[in-house]
Formats: sequence, structure tokens, C-alpha cells
Amino acid sequence: MAATIDLNADLGESFGAWKLGDDQAMLPLVTSANVACGFHAGDPSTLLTTVRAARRHGVIVGAQVGYRDLAGFGRRFLDVAPADLTADVLYQLGALDGLCRSVGSAVRYLKPHGALYHAVTTHEGQAAAVVAAVLAYDPTLPILGLPGSRLLALAGQAGLRTVPEAFADRGYTADGGLVPRGSPGAVLGDPAAVAARVLGLLTRGVVVAVDGTEVPLRPESVCLHGDSPGAVQLAAAVRAALTAVGITPRPFAQP
Amino acid sequence: MAATIDLNADLGESFGAWKLGDDQAMLPLVTSANVACGFHAGDPSTLLTTVRAARRHGVIVGAQVGYRDLAGFGRRFLDVAPADLTADVLYQLGALDGLCRSVGSAVRYLKPHGALYHAVTTHEGQAAAVVAAVLAYDPTLPILGLPGSRLLALAGQAGLRTVPEAFADRGYTADGGLVPRGSPGAVLGDPAAVAARVLGLLTRGVVVAVDGTEVPLRPESVCLHGDSPGAVQLAAAVRAALTAVGITPRPFAQP
Amino acid sequence: MAATIDLNADLGESFGAWKLGDDQAMLPLVTSANVACGFHAGDPSTLLTTVRAARRHGVIVGAQVGYRDLAGFGRRFLDVAPADLTADVLYQLGALDGLCRSVGSAVRYLKPHGALYHAVTTHEGQAAAVVAAVLAYDPTLPILGLPGSRLLALAGQAGLRTVPEAFADRGYTADGGLVPRGSPGAVLGDPAAVAARVLGLLTRGVVVAVDGTEVPLRPESVCLHGDSPGAVQLAAAVRAALTAVGITPRPFAQP
Amino acid sequence: MAATIDLNADLGESFGAWKLGDDQAMLPLVTSANVACGFHAGDPSTLLTTVRAARRHGVIVGAQVGYRDLAGFGRRFLDVAPADLTADVLYQLGALDGLCRSVGSAVRYLKPHGALYHAVTTHEGQAAAVVAAVLAYDPTLPILGLPGSRLLALAGQAGLRTVPEAFADRGYTADGGLVPRGSPGAVLGDPAAVAARVLGLLTRGVVVAVDGTEVPLRPESVCLHGDSPGAVQLAAAVRAALTAVGITPRPFAQP
Repeated sequence: MAATIDLNADLGESFGAWKLGDDQAMLPLVTSANVACGFHAGDPSTLLTTVRAARRHGVIVGAQVGYRDLAGFGRRFLDVAPADLTADVLYQLGALDGLCRSVGSAVRYLKPHGALYHAVTTHEGQAAAVVAAVLAYDPTLPILGLPGSRLLALAGQAGLRTVPEAFADRGYTADGGLVPRGSPGAVLGDPAAVAARVLGLLTRGVVVAVDGTEVPLRPESVCLHGDSPGAVQLAAAVRAALTAVGITPRPFAQP
Repeated sequence: MAATIDLNADLGESFGAWKLGDDQAMLPLVTSANVACGFHAGDPSTLLTTVRAARRHGVIVGAQVGYRDLAGFGRRFLDVAPADLTADVLYQLGALDGLCRSVGSAVRYLKPHGALYHAVTTHEGQAAAVVAAVLAYDPTLPILGLPGSRLLALAGQAGLRTVPEAFADRGYTADGGLVPRGSPGAVLGDPAAVAARVLGLLTRGVVVAVDGTEVPLRPESVCLHGDSPGAVQLAAAVRAALTAVGITPRPFAQP
Repeated sequence: MAATIDLNADLGESFGAWKLGDDQAMLPLVTSANVACGFHAGDPSTLLTTVRAARRHGVIVGAQVGYRDLAGFGRRFLDVAPADLTADVLYQLGALDGLCRSVGSAVRYLKPHGALYHAVTTHEGQAAAVVAAVLAYDPTLPILGLPGSRLLALAGQAGLRTVPEAFADRGYTADGGLVPRGSPGAVLGDPAAVAARVLGLLTRGVVVAVDGTEVPLRPESVCLHGDSPGAVQLAAAVRAALTAVGITPRPFAQP
Repeated sequence: MAATIDLNADLGESFGAWKLGDDQAMLPLVTSANVACGFHAGDPSTLLTTVRAARRHGVIVGAQVGYRDLAGFGRRFLDVAPADLTADVLYQLGALDGLCRSVGSAVRYLKPHGALYHAVTTHEGQAAAVVAAVLAYDPTLPILGLPGSRLLALAGQAGLRTVPEAFADRGYTADGGLVPRGSPGAVLGDPAAVAARVLGLLTRGVVVAVDGTEVPLRPESVCLHGDSPGAVQLAAAVRAALTAVGITPRPFAQP
């Protein structure tokens, strides 16, 4: 049984006048914040406020890089050429790191967002482009992603640290993939059930898929969503359940 | 008489399919490149190509930060709140620095672009916002700007290094300001005349204003434009004239 | 005493994943919807949904045109050249009208948004640019705006119909201007007080300014805000108060 | 043999400070202008100038709609949901039509741009979304596109007029598709060869594919590119060759 686990969530996803998620409520609950970098969400003022608050809460900041698509919130596949994607990722990494630097912290890992997250599970060129950006920027930065994805495979081959994650509130298929949003069982909403599943994952190393199969999973981080109704309660329930059995939330990366 | 002088120009101002300026021709002529940061111009791929080429040519890179206004090329005043402007500048600084880092260089100074350049000659709040960003990001970064501007005054008071510049091809008013674009004498086009004026500036410390007045100026850098017709020839003429009298082009900042 | 009055509010101000305002709750309460046009807010899908819903509720649609500034929600002055502003307004008018056309309605008036609204109270060039756009697009379109503004003056001189409005929940200065946001008395929050002030306006033709002065005002429309906390309750209170004294909410423009 | 033929080209693809193509030189050579609509290129001022010039030259204006991707110039596939794409197309159609209306003309047809053009040759959902937009906007608007594409098939089934085009300077595969850019024979550069191929197309109804096969094609319009080096000379050569054999360039749509 794991003695500690990282809890990550997406933060900094507001944009100008538009607010999304409850960052102030989530920061005390997580250990790592996947902070948007301005391409799918996050204007610079929002991001600066977010990384400052993260530092105050002792929460590690990761760069949540995405496609250049504000109108689609980075949730639509964009067929960017790999060389351009590498530049896009470097730009986002640097931008967020610059904001962190101004408050005395730094970007400590990278996690792709939305459609890019899904694309790099299988898209060789885009997965390699993300890896190339991290290698060129800072080869000590870990990549947080889906176990079994091309991204983590290529990152590992390149000598980068890879951090596999599990999703607290997403349904799994028998092969360890996520049930697509919109399909039955894609998203779990009951805090008690979600907390129980996370406990199962951390104590027994398995998650029960939608068809009942037990899928082995050894995540180093658990992703909690921060932007859905009830997200905060759900995150609190997971954290409480972990603490109750003596599993300490702790970031996977060094501050 | 100055033994050396920095020559700066705006580079990296293309955007996606749209090309602007002849960066390849300008790089051998200048010692410092004011590279766009994506807010007024410069997509990440363009910027990466630019900073890579600058490094190859031994040209120092500065962050040319601007208003978030691609459609207006950063040439229209935008009444950004100072706190937001500080975040915008940090974001741009970090983004360009991240691209530089990936090629083994770094941002070595900051210069505001376009309407922001003009605004901070007098706009207290925006000038202070730019200074605050540099202080928070890296207090060893010099700011390149207009002599006598509020920006350089506030930067100096804050302990930042300030680098005053002169414009090779812009007309001056008797008080040391620039003749507004569109007014008679705003832009000089004759390479020989421009070269002669730069020589006068560096050997005698004066520039002749549109009304004939001799205006004292002690620039540490001379700005050459790279985006107008004949820009390259003009830059080459200035550089040749300087070299002919033994003034060596040399960057003001450390590589 | 007025027998009817138009009630207008800003709608369609969401953008992609980001939601703003409660359009569904406001539509039954207003008679005219100032619908964003994509420059300060409003992606095409949101706008299409909004104009379709407006038609279903019998609510008239106006084009709420703004500066090209999503990050600033159009609330920051942008020094656009008048010729460019005319083109920007035409583009926005046409875009929203195209969406209306697809659902069997049409844009029936224009109202500037945010910083543009404020700029054209005094900025001659930008006010004239907005008028030029309406004249070129459809000289039968009324302009909704601030009584006493340059915009309404120039529009009237050009032969356009002008529709002066009052703000239900904004404080007034003695000269009929609005108390700037952030100053004491800028925004009223109590539904009963707001309803009373609107009644005073419509029955006696005066509004009480922050200094106690009675300011004469003869609005043809009353603006209700839809994006602040309590906005819907406030709008409902105003509508109920009007109906109670026999003033019928009715659009100023033809459907 | 055809007595007349339409000649179309992409115009209005500049953006702010960035210029692309030589619209002034192309307008006397073509009969139909595919004018950008702001999503992949074309700021409102550029578009207004373009449609005004088109009207002066008697050139018909079509809406060249694209993905919302300025940084990629609309050349990267974007997986937009069909309902959102319909709204995006309506928005672009209306915006350009509004600008046309202000100069006394109107949008007379639609042609998809770049990656959208290619996607709708086979992508059922996106092709249907474009058709739905035209049906809702104005069912008398023809769609200009690739013969054999899903777009033209669905448009025809929906009762829209479809206008098949051929490309003067693109290589064809044996099945009537285009040789992908980057492959050998993808783009033809010799004016005489291009003119000869267009003549063959219009007099014999065939184009010779890269493998030597004669592919039957009955285009109602020939696309000339305006943004490549030598584009204007090539367009002039085609027009001269047509005129020499008595084929009159004439728009396929009514002014």
C-alpha cells in the first residue's frame, strides 16, 4: 500500500472576465496544480494570481500545455506540425515559468491538456514533439500523463521522468483507457464512490472498469477535477478518505 | 568619441503564414535583436527560429514586449491596468526566455514595442508596471528605451540598468522627442544621410532636429529598422560608416 | 408618465467553455437584448443559441459592438483608428446579423459595449466611426446610447434614430454622467431601491444623483445588468414594479 | 468547348500589418474573389478594402470560410464539432456579407479554405455542417469546391447549386484528387505549361495526372493562386491563353 500519493488538479483556467473552477477551494486539497499556460485558458493576470496562491499553499506547479485554441478550450484536436508544437510547448512552458519565477517558484512538471492529452496517447509525432520541448527546456522536468500512452513511453526512452496518473472521477475501460465523455459511466459523481475507488487504487493497485474487470494501475498521482459542479466536495471526500487510512497527500515533484 | 556602439533592430515579427522584415539579412548587421514575444507579433515557431539564428550570429536577444493586439501590431494604445500589464510583460519575458533557453541562450534585456514604447515615455502607471515586471523577473536585465522617458527614469530609480537609444532613421524634435509618424521629416530614407547622422551622434553627441536645433544625445544603442523598404541597405550603410571611422558595433549586454 | 418602456440587457457574453450571465433567466424579463458580436465576448455557437432564444421569447436583438479585446472583455480603451473602427463595427454587425438571419430574425439596433461605450461619449473620431458604420450598413438601424453623448449627437445629425437609455443600477453624477465604477455609489444593489429609482425616472422624468441633485432624464430604454450577482432578482424587481403601475415593457424597435 | 469560364483566386488574406498576395494585381485577372472572412486571415479593414476593390473591378465576392486558426492560417485540421462549425460558418458569412453590403455588393458564393477545404472532401460531419450553414443563411448561394467531394455531394442533395473547380497550378492524381503539397508534381510553376493545361481542360475536358493518366474534369471555375511567387504572371498567362482561343472569363454567379 502506498504511504503517500500526489493529488493533482487543473487550475488557472479562468480567462479575463470569465471565471472557471474554484481555485481557492481546490488549493488546500491538492499537492500539485496543473496550471494553464494561456493557449487554451489562463490570461497572464489569472496565471500570476494562481502561481502566487499555489506557492502560498505549498502546492507544486506544473505547466498544463495545450493547443492554441481559446474558443475550443483546447478540447478539439488540432493537427499542428510537430516542429510547431515543440515551439508552442516551449513558449507555454517558458511563459508560466516566468510568472513562477517572479513569485519565487518554478514550473516543476508538465502535463498536456484536453485534446492534446488525448492525442499524445497515440499520436507519435505530437507525442515526440512534447518530449522534444521538455528535453530542450529542462530534462529534469517530469511529465505527468496517462499510463501506457505514447507520450510516457517516448519520454521514458528519452530519459525523462514519467509520472503515471489515475483519474478519481472518470470511468475506465477494460484495457485501462478512459470511457469517452458522453458515454455511460464516463464520469462518476458520487463522492463516496469516488473516494472508495481511489482507496482501492492505492491499497490494492486496481481500478474496476465499466464492465466489471479489475484493471491493474499503479499511479503516482491522482487527478481530481476542479471545474465541474461538486468538484470541490468530491476532492475533499477523496482527501479525507486517504488521510483516514494513513495515506499522506504529497507532491511527486520537489518544490 | 565612442569606440563602440550597440546596433539594435526589431526581429521575429512574422506571424504564421505572414512574413515581415528580412531577419536573415539584418542579423549580420546588428548586435542586439529586439525579438517580438507573441503579443503584437511572433508565433512560437518564428520566435524559435529567430533566437536560434541570433545565437548563431552572436547577436544578443532582448524581449520586445507589447500590448496584446495582433490585429493592431501593438501600435495602438491599450489602456491596460498596470497590474495586468505587469503580468503581460512577465508572461512575454518568460515565453521568449524559454525559447532562448532551449537553444542555449537567454533574454538579455527588455525593450517595449510600438504604442507601449510611446506610452511609457509619459504614462506613469504603465511605465511603473514594466519596471515592476523586470524587477520581479530578473533585476539584472537592462531596459532599452527612449532617453528622458518615464520608463528609464523609474527603472533607474529602481536600480535597473537603463540603456538610452537613438533612432538612425527617425526625425527628432527640438526637445529630443521623435517627430510623429505621418508628419514631415518623421522618417529619413537616404542611406548616406542616415549614416552621416549616426556618425554625428556618436562623434559629436548631437542630432540635428527637424527645426535645425542641435539636440544633445548620448545613446548607448542605435535603433535600425528592419521592416521598411530599403531597411537592409540603410542598416548596412550605417554599419559601414561606423566601421570606417573605427567605431566597433558591440552589444551593450553580456551574451 | 410613460405608458411603455424598453428594458435592455447584455446577453450572449459567454465564450466557449466560459459562461457569463444567466441569459435564460434574463430573456423573459427584457424586451431588447444587446448581444455581443465576438470581439469582446461571444463565440459563434453561443451567439447563435442566444439569438435563437431571443426570437423564441420575442426579444429584439441589437448588436453590442466592442473593441477587439477578448482578454480585456472590451473594457479597456483601445486607440483604434476611426477607419479601422468602422470596419470592425461593420464586421461585427454583419456577423451577428448573419446569425440572426439563419434563425429568421435580424439585428434591429446597435449599442456600443464597455470601453467603446464610454469612449464615444466624448471621442469625436470613434463616435463618428460608429455612426459611419451604421449609415453604410443600414441607415434605419437605431443607436442605443447615453443621452448627451457625442455618439447620439453625431448619429442624430446624420439622420439616424437615437435611443437614449438610463441605467437602473448605476449611480449618476449631477451632470447626468455615470459615477465611475469603483467610486462610492457607482453601483446600486438593492432591488427595492433600484425599482423605486426606475419608477421615479419613468413617472417623474428625473433620477437622483449621488449628491442629491435631481437630474432630468427622458430615457426610451432602461438598461438592466445581467452579469452581476443578484442581477436576475434585480431585473425581476424592476419589471414587477413597472407592471404594477401599468407601465408595459415594450421594445423600442420593430421586430 | 466552353465559351466562358470563371477564374477564381483567394484574396483579402492580409492581416493587420502583415501583407499577403497582390490583390491589386489579381483583381483585373479574375472574375470571382474568394475573400477571407477573418478566421484564418483578413482583418476587417483589409476585407473592406478588398470587397470595395472587387466591386470596382466587377469581380464577384465569395466567402472563403475557414477554421478559427490565425496562427495556422487555417491550414491545420481542427476537429470542430459540426454544430459549432455551422455557427462559425454563419458568423463568417454574415461578417463578410455585412462588409459587402456597406459597399453596395453582397457575398455571392461560399468556398471553404485550406484544411477545411480538404476536410470536407471526406469528413461527413463537417461537410454537412457547411451545407447547413448555407441552407440557413441563403439557399440560393452556390458552393464552390472540389468535384467528387462530400461537400458538393451533400450540397447537391440539399438543393444547393454546386460549382466544381479545377486548379490551374496543382498536380492531379489519377483519381482526380490533388497531389499533396510537398510531394513531387504537387505545384506547377511554368506559366506556359499551366496555360496549356487549362486550355486542355476547357477544350477537351481532361487534365493529365502526374502518372500520365488523362482524368476527365468539367470545371465551372478555375482556381488561380495569388499568394505564391510568380502568381500574378501565371494568372496573366492563363487569362491570355483563354482569351486567345475565344474563351471569355465570366463569373459563374450573378453580381
